[in-house]
Amino acid sequence: MASLGDIGVSALINIITAFAFLLAFALLRIQPINDRVYFPKWYIIGARTSPTHNNFVAKFVNLNFKTYLTFLNWMPQTMRMKEPEIIEHAGLDSAAFLRIYLLGLKIFGPAAIVAFLVLIPVNVSGGMLFFLSKELVISDIDKLSISNVQPKSPKFFAHILMMYLFTFWACYMLYKEYDVIASMRLNFLASKSRRAEQFTVLVRNVPHVPDQSVSDTVKCFFKKNHSTHYLCHQTVYNANKYARAVRKRQKLQNSLDYNMLKFERHPEKRPTRKTGFLGLWGKKVDTIENYQQKIKELDEKLTMEHQKILKDPKRIMPAAFVSFNSRWGAAVCAQTQQSKNPILWLTEWAPEPHDVYWKNLAIPFVSLSIRKLIISLAVFALVFFYIIPIAFVQSLANLEGLEKVVPFLRPVIEWSFIKSFLQGFLPGLALKIFLWLLPGILMTLSKIEGHVAFSVLERSTAAKYYFFMLVNVFLGSIATGTAIQQLQSFLHQSPTQIPRTIGVSIPMKATFFITYIMVDGWAGMAGEILRLKPLIMFHLKNMVLVKTERDRLKAMNPKSIDFPEAIPSLQLYFLMGAVYAVVTPILLPFILIFFAFAYFVYRHQVINVYNQRYESAAAFWPHVHHRILASLLISQLLLLGLLSTKKAASSTPLLAVLPILTLSFHQFCKNRFEPAFRKYPLEEAVEKDTQDEACEPEIDMKPYLCEAYLHPVLHSIEEFELFELGVDHNRAHIPSQLATEPISGSHVNEQENKVSSKMHHLEVVVEQSESVSTHNHKTLSLNVDVMHH
Amino acid sequence: MASLGDIGVSALINIITAFAFLLAFALLRIQPINDRVYFPKWYIIGARTSPTHNNFVAKFVNLNFKTYLTFLNWMPQTMRMKEPEIIEHAGLDSAAFLRIYLLGLKIFGPAAIVAFLVLIPVNVSGGMLFFLSKELVISDIDKLSISNVQPKSPKFFAHILMMYLFTFWACYMLYKEYDVIASMRLNFLASKSRRAEQFTVLVRNVPHVPDQSVSDTVKCFFKKNHSTHYLCHQTVYNANKYARAVRKRQKLQNSLDYNMLKFERHPEKRPTRKTGFLGLWGKKVDTIENYQQKIKELDEKLTMEHQKILKDPKRIMPAAFVSFNSRWGAAVCAQTQQSKNPILWLTEWAPEPHDVYWKNLAIPFVSLSIRKLIISLAVFALVFFYIIPIAFVQSLANLEGLEKVVPFLRPVIEWSFIKSFLQGFLPGLALKIFLWLLPGILMTLSKIEGHVAFSVLERSTAAKYYFFMLVNVFLGSIATGTAIQQLQSFLHQSPTQIPRTIGVSIPMKATFFITYIMVDGWAGMAGEILRLKPLIMFHLKNMVLVKTERDRLKAMNPKSIDFPEAIPSLQLYFLMGAVYAVVTPILLPFILIFFAFAYFVYRHQVINVYNQRYESAAAFWPHVHHRILASLLISQLLLLGLLSTKKAASSTPLLAVLPILTLSFHQFCKNRFEPAFRKYPLEEAVEKDTQDEACEPEIDMKPYLCEAYLHPVLHSIEEFELFELGVDHNRAHIPSQLATEPISGSHVNEQENKVSSKMHHLEVVVEQSESVSTHNHKTLSLNVDVMHH
Repeated sequence: MASLGDIGVSALINIITAFAFLLAFALLRIQPINDRVYFPKWYIIGARTSPTHNNFVAKFVNLNFKTYLTFLNWMPQTMRMKEPEIIEHAGLDSAAFLRIYLLGLKIFGPAAIVAFLVLIPVNVSGGMLFFLSKELVISDIDKLSISNVQPKSPKFFAHILMMYLFTFWACYMLYKEYDVIASMRLNFLASKSRRAEQFTVLVRNVPHVPDQSVSDTVKCFFKKNHSTHYLCHQTVYNANKYARAVRKRQKLQNSLDYNMLKFERHPEKRPTRKTGFLGLWGKKVDTIENYQQKIKELDEKLTMEHQKILKDPKRIMPAAFVSFNSRWGAAVCAQTQQSKNPILWLTEWAPEPHDVYWKNLAIPFVSLSIRKLIISLAVFALVFFYIIPIAFVQSLANLEGLEKVVPFLRPVIEWSFIKSFLQGFLPGLALKIFLWLLPGILMTLSKIEGHVAFSVLERSTAAKYYFFMLVNVFLGSIATGTAIQQLQSFLHQSPTQIPRTIGVSIPMKATFFITYIMVDGWAGMAGEILRLKPLIMFHLKNMVLVKTERDRLKAMNPKSIDFPEAIPSLQLYFLMGAVYAVVTPILLPFILIFFAFAYFVYRHQVINVYNQRYESAAAFWPHVHHRILASLLISQLLLLGLLSTKKAASSTPLLAVLPILTLSFHQFCKNRFEPAFRKYPLEEAVEKDTQDEACEPEIDMKPYLCEAYLHPVLHSIEEFELFELGVDHNRAHIPSQLATEPISGSHVNEQENKVSSKMHHLEVVVEQSESVSTHNHKTLSLNVDVMHH
Repeated sequence: MASLGDIGVSALINIITAFAFLLAFALLRIQPINDRVYFPKWYIIGARTSPTHNNFVAKFVNLNFKTYLTFLNWMPQTMRMKEPEIIEHAGLDSAAFLRIYLLGLKIFGPAAIVAFLVLIPVNVSGGMLFFLSKELVISDIDKLSISNVQPKSPKFFAHILMMYLFTFWACYMLYKEYDVIASMRLNFLASKSRRAEQFTVLVRNVPHVPDQSVSDTVKCFFKKNHSTHYLCHQTVYNANKYARAVRKRQKLQNSLDYNMLKFERHPEKRPTRKTGFLGLWGKKVDTIENYQQKIKELDEKLTMEHQKILKDPKRIMPAAFVSFNSRWGAAVCAQTQQSKNPILWLTEWAPEPHDVYWKNLAIPFVSLSIRKLIISLAVFALVFFYIIPIAFVQSLANLEGLEKVVPFLRPVIEWSFIKSFLQGFLPGLALKIFLWLLPGILMTLSKIEGHVAFSVLERSTAAKYYFFMLVNVFLGSIATGTAIQQLQSFLHQSPTQIPRTIGVSIPMKATFFITYIMVDGWAGMAGEILRLKPLIMFHLKNMVLVKTERDRLKAMNPKSIDFPEAIPSLQLYFLMGAVYAVVTPILLPFILIFFAFAYFVYRHQVINVYNQRYESAAAFWPHVHHRILASLLISQLLLLGLLSTKKAASSTPLLAVLPILTLSFHQFCKNRFEPAFRKYPLEEAVEKDTQDEACEPEIDMKPYLCEAYLHPVLHSIEEFELFELGVDHNRAHIPSQLATEPISGSHVNEQENKVSSKMHHLEVVVEQSESVSTHNHKTLSLNVDVMHH
């Protein structure tokens, strides 16, 4: 077991790493050349364009040295944007995500204070360090933990009381937060203007009627069963092949543009290329002509394919997006059973157009249940066999084991600093590497499972990932640390023995989790803000691939927050906090620092970097809530197990009440709040419908709604490209004056005008208030201010 | 352990008991005096009235001795009525209930044949009777069971194959049956004429709006959110106090009628009574005047109370029955979420008016979740502490134990016949007595839980009862038979050890379950058809209480089939069958006899006796299906445990696949069929609405629908009485020519006319075809024939 000194070394290393990352970030972010890496969000919403400097060097390097002095000033800057502005700027998903960190601070802050004031004095006064088996080394941290209290001591009632207080406090905060998020969600949905997904329902498993097309079947059915509300529908085409061809055409067009540009600049030299592999050998041809020829050929093929998709019945999937003339009609259709045969005509709310995962739309019902079964088995296997390599690495991290494996390294290992380093750093690092590959695998599994929206895919992946983290990172670390064979022995133990076995090892594992928090949490967050990988990738792409402005936009693509990985990792901290709040409260400050630091980092990223692909209006919150509650349950069971080994038998009934209370709180919250996240109340629908009617009674949504759920690739090639980048957030939005205004163009222009006028106004304000900064710096602080006013 | 001889004695006793019961039944049923006990259903539907004989003796005793000769002829008679007729006669619930017995025959019949042809030869050829511990006595039955097969023998693959075959066969039959029942349900619902519950939704948790009555709040809300479909509503009144007063008035009215009658017959003697306790002492008054006076007083009180109910806002509950002008509107409202706050405006389909449990309609939402929690804890405690007395009785049933407790009885016990009797009879009987009290307790618990319909109450009670039977009767008998402390030791055993421990005891317990089947199943069913308790009660009431014709109707009240008790008991036989089909197939014939016999008995009872209080259209089927599947799962796990003790380790993976397959079959069926039992498809609603529109476009349902869900006590006193007896099945039915016909009276008359004309027609037919029987006998066979034609 690591001593306080080991922890110190580990903390030092991690703090130095974190500071190095932060310093690097502070330096890199003010270089104009990196502007698109650290502030892509502003480019995407159009509030920022490439800097145009006369000075060639200033185009790449920040020459204003004053800005180097205040390298941590991004932190207060992130706080200037208020929550409603963040919701407007980045969506409710991002805002709700940030609130998870705040929730962590709210739950564990008071818990840490109480634990430090009450529990640590109680533990220290215990004054006993007799332990289950003599060969275990007792560390200094254990003296502050529950291990230091004598068996059968009445002092355990302090711990039980603390557990009660902690549970009630956590439940209270969870309830309040759920309430806030639910009302934020309803307000957010209510404040949205007309959008396609509010009027549209996804229908799957349309039955095959002989001598009738899918489109006609759908039309007949809904005309009959939703006669007064049905408006129109859009059948789903299998356009995957077409999409591939379109992507190929894009590349060719890009190369053509690039060569045209090149030729324009140097009209004396007409570009040529070889037709062979990568242009390295083969016949030499005129590049521009060659590309033009190829594009022409491809265009013909595309036209044919396009025709084929619309006509070939095999390309039409038994699914459709059905639109209604009111939100009420859509809400009714989404929530009711349509057909006598319950596996036909399955309806659900349509995801927003950006959120649709088109490939999975045609999976039949029977196949879905089989897929689900197979994937659950696969996930189970993955979770329980992945533990073997982790256990192996952890057994290596055990120094005695390492010395046996590589005896010639003994002198090096025995050197105290290296020893501390290995003991403090290695276990966490090994885990981190293992976890790196995982989200991709889990996402693939979720895709095979057959979900039809990216948001659901991500939530499903997050659930799998959390399960993995819980078993392997948390329980696995605790159990295999004591003995690798623990897992197998669990199967042959009694159910009451399991929490006892794990409970006993918990206090001993505190140091491991402290180092884990520092490596994964502290240093990890600093790495998150540095964006080393996107930085390198952007510059590499910029050098090699970027030929046109559109390519640059593509190279900069900041993607969304990685919810499937970020949320479960974050929830692991809740679990650690809940388990150790009573057992080894010294762990809490480390978690609090993580929450606070991560809150700053993600606030910065949400404002300046990430561009969410879809907006689910915080639909993930029930999962967050459930998993924090599950953490509470686990912590209660483990404490029960731990205390039963401490022979505090009289406490058992007292503690056994807590899980029951927690479960009923869960049930209550489920009934109270979950429908707000799953269903759309008719009251709300009627209200919005009436509002719309009052504002614009004459509007005809049909032409717009029919188009909204066409496979993006069938719209037009340019739109598809923007769609792939997640830029055109306006496509799902129904323009309010559709009759008088053309759909595209003017709307985007209007938004740009709005932003630029805002920018202008702000520039004046900023110039009046502070006059220190150069143009560059001013733009930086502007990012934050734009939304502030 | 009981030997084959013990089983023989037990079988003999039970067969004699059963035959005695049957004989008694055959004799009693043809006595005119018992006619109302054995054929009440026909009195209720009006196809039979009290026999009117000139001969005074013939009024009570059947004097036609020919009819005594054919005492088992009720059996073929029950088979004459076909299933569609049963549905029409007794409702779909009864018909579906009968199908459970048929399903048992279908599943276990072929299984028994295969087991006898394959498994028993395999077991017998095993030729080994070494067992786990030497002190256990091996019985003859064990030689036919799996115990007779040597450990590690490859013969176990025959058992595994049999388990596979059995599972697939059972799942296939379950699937087919679910399919049939689901389509029967849809047809049944579709064939129903307009009924109030098809247009009505129960709304609970109506929020309190200041300065507005509940009625106005409901009206506003539904006018706004279901503007085109809302028709009217009926608020729920707390009329429990009024109902008590009405019942008191009934009694008084009855006594008055009786005295008036008496006075009419003997005009010379005006009846008098004393005002004190039970008319035994006190002032002597004129009875008729006294009662008239009392009724007058009560009527005034009733009028006041009636006014109070309708006006006092405290008597109005925050719940309402909201009616719509189309089935579509009601289906939409029942299936969607209404309010932004998910715990307000909860909607669900209204139960039919007879099915409403009025008392529970006002329970608020928060209280409901707390109630649920408390009741689950209570049920858990009940199930797990009830085991102690049962275990005690069972340990007494162990002869050695008995001899120790009462040594002076040893000579008696040692007498071989008594010994066999005790061993064969006692354990089953003890259980039966314990189980007698239980359904009442569980029903009370379900009522406290807060369900609002009798059908749901009964299903909930059935679920609790099944859980009880599973743990205490099945697992409890197996485990405590070996050692009473087994249960406690389970907690300290590993999860894989539990099926092993139980699995080992299973073959040893076969004899116990065989006697259980004979006592509970065979003799129990014979007791069911004898109706000893209702017979005695009827005659007692007839002698003491019955004063008027209405009283006689009340005394005869046959009630409904006791679903909460009958269905779980029945499912226990499925469990026994599934578990022993592979282990000790000799048990299967006993179960098959039970299923066949019970099928006959319940067919007779459904046709002639029971009068269902409500009609849920087989809504209990998903529960039946789930529990039979659960039985399959349990049998698989136990076989796995059994085989693992037989060291047939190589079979484990083979068998472990089965539960997974079973679970996915469960999931598939749940998706495929369950919505048909929970929701009302819009397609269906539109179809029926269109039909109605075509037939009777002009009908105005409003005046009728508004009345349908008034608390029955508020209608009128006479209607309430009929309601309590479950007679007026027509109240929920919307008369088709409402505009031209008055609601009450004519409709009932019409039905009576119909029935009597049918009777007349049949009497002619019968007299032509058979001329042996007396009037009495003819009426008996008529009961069956009426519906046949």
